[in-house]
Amino acid sequence: MKEFELIERLTRSLPSSASVLTGAGDDCAVLDLRIPDRLLLFKTDAIVQGVHFESTAPPEKVGHKALGRCLSDIAAMAGIPTAALVTLALPREFDPNYLERLYCGINKLARQFDVAIVGGETTTNPERLLISISLLGWVARGKVLLRSGAKPGDALFVTGELGGSLAGKHLEFEPRLAEARWLAEHFQIHAMIDLSDGLAGDLPHILKASGVGAELLASAIPLSREARRAAKASGEPALLAGLTNGEDFELLFTMASRDAVPLLDSWKKQYPHTLLSCIGKITSAKGIAIRDKQGLRPLTVHGYEHFA
Amino acid sequence: MKEFELIERLTRSLPSSASVLTGAGDDCAVLDLRIPDRLLLFKTDAIVQGVHFESTAPPEKVGHKALGRCLSDIAAMAGIPTAALVTLALPREFDPNYLERLYCGINKLARQFDVAIVGGETTTNPERLLISISLLGWVARGKVLLRSGAKPGDALFVTGELGGSLAGKHLEFEPRLAEARWLAEHFQIHAMIDLSDGLAGDLPHILKASGVGAELLASAIPLSREARRAAKASGEPALLAGLTNGEDFELLFTMASRDAVPLLDSWKKQYPHTLLSCIGKITSAKGIAIRDKQGLRPLTVHGYEHFA
Repeated sequence: MKEFELIERLTRSLPSSASVLTGAGDDCAVLDLRIPDRLLLFKTDAIVQGVHFESTAPPEKVGHKALGRCLSDIAAMAGIPTAALVTLALPREFDPNYLERLYCGINKLARQFDVAIVGGETTTNPERLLISISLLGWVARGKVLLRSGAKPGDALFVTGELGGSLAGKHLEFEPRLAEARWLAEHFQIHAMIDLSDGLAGDLPHILKASGVGAELLASAIPLSREARRAAKASGEPALLAGLTNGEDFELLFTMASRDAVPLLDSWKKQYPHTLLSCIGKITSAKGIAIRDKQGLRPLTVHGYEHFA
Repeated sequence: MKEFELIERLTRSLPSSASVLTGAGDDCAVLDLRIPDRLLLFKTDAIVQGVHFESTAPPEKVGHKALGRCLSDIAAMAGIPTAALVTLALPREFDPNYLERLYCGINKLARQFDVAIVGGETTTNPERLLISISLLGWVARGKVLLRSGAKPGDALFVTGELGGSLAGKHLEFEPRLAEARWLAEHFQIHAMIDLSDGLAGDLPHILKASGVGAELLASAIPLSREARRAAKASGEPALLAGLTNGEDFELLFTMASRDAVPLLDSWKKQYPHTLLSCIGKITSAKGIAIRDKQGLRPLTVHGYEHFA
């Protein structure tokens, strides 16, 4: 059973309440807890030894990744993170120094984004280390960016470069919190998501939530040096890595096409060292099509599936 | 290394912020997020197959326990739970029907206490199932009950009966949310905690946070039928089970001794089917002493230590 099928089955009839504006199915839950000018964002994410990081990875980077993944989800809603809880599920044999270094990585990233670490829990997971982070954040009322706002004709943008994250970026990425807030403050963004399961895996979430399709321009998809290098070594096309590799933690968003040129101009001044690429457009026809030298054809590759 | 030593080491210098009223070290974190009349409570808790539940346990009860433990922590602060996220870390082989039944247990308890399930995550934990719950709640400003308010001379109370939880209660307990709120609304409670690690394990948290000690009256400690039955079988004293067995999920609290009789009277009318026992008093002398037929002696047994 695929992850998304299982989630669909489990989340079919969840208890809700009047304070829930967005429940399961977006990057974060959005809650209205009667804060006059703000909505609350609520997110949880776990990483597991041997699945999301190797036991040889520097523990500071493992801590960085654990918190960074959650922060990236707050970014995807143009939110501001506030407070986090850390759950450590510890194997039978653990090294307190390793855990201290892991906490250093969490704390350093938390300080960078003014996130308080307000507690958590240690428990036992005999075979391997698991780190779960719960994160609270907020967004100004009327400023939350959901997956569901994409409209036919929208331009589709992605920050940074895609693919090859396993070569190192997955442990070192900087969550795009500042960029997302800048985007939401200066432009009318219609829909946004962060890329954790690859462009081909995450774009469908925007399309499904918005009831639209997309057309990608193959040559416009920004591929990382690592994706190109891996492609050379494996003989597979680099585009495949750019489409399907997980853990890019870049922002994917849509906006009216008339705003595309002003955005690209402003972005270059604001973030001269970070790429922003217009990689295609939203269509009323469902599904994803990709245009390359051979013409337009349906995209059939899938993003990284956790249970595949 | 004991759990509490490790936690002390890891939580020594956590990033904080102005919105954090109580961080690591109480039942929940308490945050001031500018909700006019409320403070926010934030808690996370995980249970692990083979550690906190057996794989033969009915999945509905496992789900009940996973959420119930978090709810019990909200109760310990006299709070009202609002919204939860569910993290499932799934073994390589899992049965979707088992998970659906587990969710039924979570959802049923959530509905009972008007908690919205607003999302979560599925990930992989190859050897065993782990369920982590993150919970948000709130408490009226000025009404939050911390561990730190106990005063010498206070009477010490516990709800329900202690010990023998493994015989079944640990999968079926009802979090004392209503009782805790009733207590906070009608009486001046000084300090409160929920019993997850046994009276002898959790009372020291109140004492340490409040800078006080306690004297227990052995004959007043309410022992469950299961604790007595297990004592008979093992030959160990039932009191030991009542002091050291984990997962009672009862409330332990202190209040001025002059309020003790009015409380016991009102409680009997409000909760005729739930025991409330005055089990001792808070002392200025540090440590825990216990009075029995042999006189007063220091209590040396320890609560359930996760890493013991």
